[in-house]
Amino acid sequence: MIDALLHGTAMAQRRALAKAITLLESTRPDHRAQADELLTALLPHTGKAFRLGISGVPGVGKSTFIEALGLHLIGLGQRVAVLAVDPSSSVSGGSILGDKTRMERLSNHERAYIRPSPSSGSLGGVAEKTRETILLCEAAGFDVVIVETVGVGQSEIAVANMTDLFCLLQLPNAGDELQAIKRGVMERADLVLINKADLDPAAATRARAQISAALRLLGWNERAGAQEAPHWHPQVLELSALRAQGLEAFWAAVSEFRRLQSADGRLAARRQQQALAWMWERVQAGLQQALRHNPAVQRILEPTTRAVADGSLAASVAARRLLAAHLGNLSN
Amino acid sequence: MIDALLHGTAMAQRRALAKAITLLESTRPDHRAQADELLTALLPHTGKAFRLGISGVPGVGKSTFIEALGLHLIGLGQRVAVLAVDPSSSVSGGSILGDKTRMERLSNHERAYIRPSPSSGSLGGVAEKTRETILLCEAAGFDVVIVETVGVGQSEIAVANMTDLFCLLQLPNAGDELQAIKRGVMERADLVLINKADLDPAAATRARAQISAALRLLGWNERAGAQEAPHWHPQVLELSALRAQGLEAFWAAVSEFRRLQSADGRLAARRQQQALAWMWERVQAGLQQALRHNPAVQRILEPTTRAVADGSLAASVAARRLLAAHLGNLSN
Repeated sequence: MIDALLHGTAMAQRRALAKAITLLESTRPDHRAQADELLTALLPHTGKAFRLGISGVPGVGKSTFIEALGLHLIGLGQRVAVLAVDPSSSVSGGSILGDKTRMERLSNHERAYIRPSPSSGSLGGVAEKTRETILLCEAAGFDVVIVETVGVGQSEIAVANMTDLFCLLQLPNAGDELQAIKRGVMERADLVLINKADLDPAAATRARAQISAALRLLGWNERAGAQEAPHWHPQVLELSALRAQGLEAFWAAVSEFRRLQSADGRLAARRQQQALAWMWERVQAGLQQALRHNPAVQRILEPTTRAVADGSLAASVAARRLLAAHLGNLSN
Repeated sequence: MIDALLHGTAMAQRRALAKAITLLESTRPDHRAQADELLTALLPHTGKAFRLGISGVPGVGKSTFIEALGLHLIGLGQRVAVLAVDPSSSVSGGSILGDKTRMERLSNHERAYIRPSPSSGSLGGVAEKTRETILLCEAAGFDVVIVETVGVGQSEIAVANMTDLFCLLQLPNAGDELQAIKRGVMERADLVLINKADLDPAAATRARAQISAALRLLGWNERAGAQEAPHWHPQVLELSALRAQGLEAFWAAVSEFRRLQSADGRLAARRQQQALAWMWERVQAGLQQALRHNPAVQRILEPTTRAVADGSLAASVAARRLLAAHLGNLSN
């Protein structure tokens, strides 16, 4: 599998990729151990792709944009993988990318690989499998890995935390940017794209000015506190994904971002920081799971939680009791 | 101590309170065990105060406002405790409330009790001690417990998570509200006060309109999704703390909020939710601490972290290794 993934034909790589992803999405411990071995073996061959995060609310036109961008990049000689993070897909049966016909032309292209969201329940689990899949795609030689997410909740932050450039798609509606600011997503955006700009050019221009102003204000604190000059001001671009207008300007901005980030080591630093944060996030999730599966904890969890809820036990005292039951150490 | 705290004179209660707080701020395990017993014994006598959170950036006039409000409430026959959450105080030697002369008239009043921020380092630790101190103050019969924090970082969210009403002080500067929205604080505000409104009444009126619009937009999603009519729309009031103008209107709004929240059980539900979230937060912190103190983890932590940082080990594999070392269970 490793050999097919690294050195196979495009077709053989796609088959090996699908098999490897199935392995790392498996819940069987022996599969998990194999997947860990595979990841460790492939790691020296990862890291060369550009990791592009794309977010935006439903209806903003993400699929149309990603298909147009993917075909544009293939036209430039690149190979493109598209992954999705959608923790709700286990419930809905896969709302994003579940139907590959959404990106029919791109998904049929041999230089593209499209994978729907893992449907393993928690956002942490879905994000983990997507991060691992990014590594597999890089080992298989894809040049650009696009990670798409629907613009709600914490999944956007998860995608910003696993990509080199995080791009937010917006509609040209006044006030729309406030929702993105509220979700904490606007401040994570390296690029904001105003899609469907052709429908109402005047509104798009207004939205661009408003979002630019918001980005300046959001960034002001950091810039005022920073010792050095900022290397990148988040940009706002207009686009019509449907008419494939604005793609060249978008990719030129991405390339300039990438050049600047690579030149001064920020790209490597960002990836290093993401990897360490990811490690600690998974450690936390594992610790929590071990606690909940501990029989000593399970015996007292329900009455302890009830006592906190009805106000007969202080939360901090309850926490110490749960920890003592778990760690078997009453002095902690 | 319990008897003095519950039934002593105001003076005896203040002394007992100071002793009890010292106990729960101690790092000695036997003190901690005593503090837990004390909390559990006092818990039936807690919960009757109104817990008021106050936040705002440095210079917004928090001390002046809290002193004016405290004296106003004492004039209404109430007893007022003022606590602070400032995780930086261990570094700075106590920037908030460290100097009681900041609220000289209030701190000298026998119906008031002012306590600077615990200086135990992490925000989680500081917040925990403040939450416990709220309970002690309630047992000692204070009617209103004000928890103040400086308007930076996560300490505002911590205070919003431990109070019945969270109030944000703002200056009448256009665009200032964007910083509060960015920090995730505006959406947690039940009341926004525009202080120093007397200095530039026109600017204060503009700021009020802007913040009201922002609050409507921020709340729109929740309201659109909610089945029931909202019980409370966050209000924006103008104030001059220095001239003690607007305090009656502020307290009338607080009282109306309290009446509405108590009538339909929302106050109890909010406190219950806060207590459970607090319990889990402390459990997480304790789990993390136990992991870091485990010799089996300490042996591999540094090389594992380094391997993730230099890209020779996948973060998810590293997380599983740390967990296996900690839990002694390689199948996890």
